[in-house]
Amino acid sequence: MKLVHSRDVAKTPVEMEGAKDVEIQWLLGKDDGAPTFAMRLFELQPGGHTPLHTHPHEHEVFVLEGKGVVMDNGQERPIGPEDAILVPGGCEHNFQNTGDSVLRFLCLIPAVAC
Amino acid sequence: MKLVHSRDVAKTPVEMEGAKDVEIQWLLGKDDGAPTFAMRLFELQPGGHTPLHTHPHEHEVFVLEGKGVVMDNGQERPIGPEDAILVPGGCEHNFQNTGDSVLRFLCLIPAVAC
Repeated sequence: MKLVHSRDVAKTPVEMEGAKDVEIQWLLGKDDGAPTFAMRLFELQPGGHTPLHTHPHEHEVFVLEGKGVVMDNGQERPIGPEDAILVPGGCEHNFQNTGDSVLRFLCLIPAVAC
Repeated sequence: MKLVHSRDVAKTPVEMEGAKDVEIQWLLGKDDGAPTFAMRLFELQPGGHTPLHTHPHEHEVFVLEGKGVVMDNGQERPIGPEDAILVPGGCEHNFQNTGDSVLRFLCLIPAVAC
């Protein structure tokens, strides 16, 4: 069993084109022996956003704190704490922090996408 | 895209033998078109616990609030908010609320186990 507090997991800037003021933490994944899916934690500073992109795999997201929007094939949808979001494969999406504090959310992906 | 707040998802008592004062909410799963894994939210009342059991599939857990322990093959390990836990297949485990308020955590499982 792996048991880790989020504060003890390294934060890495997301350097992808189209990303702004985003950090990622890999909480649980292949390196821990997770066979099917991986759990990451994203932290976006105010005004920050993930890349607007599309891919074949899904995301499962749970918002922990902050305020933002998710782009859903061109439509802006507001998000906040305790929202769960399924981004299906093929959906053009990104996440934006529209608040004045950090936006933090879990984002899980299948192992084949890691 | 499915976007839902946790308060809008039905809570169902967990009726398995060995469960006490546990409710489950299925936030994202097969019925939503999630192909690889499912996101559930568990709520345990003080003194409540999930069944002590073992199965071939893994859990990925993230604690949202409260205080408890996870049993890890006979060893009690304390858990609290922002802890991420990988319960590998074959590990005997359960979750117990040892605090005086609700213990809430996300628990994700592969679709083959749904």
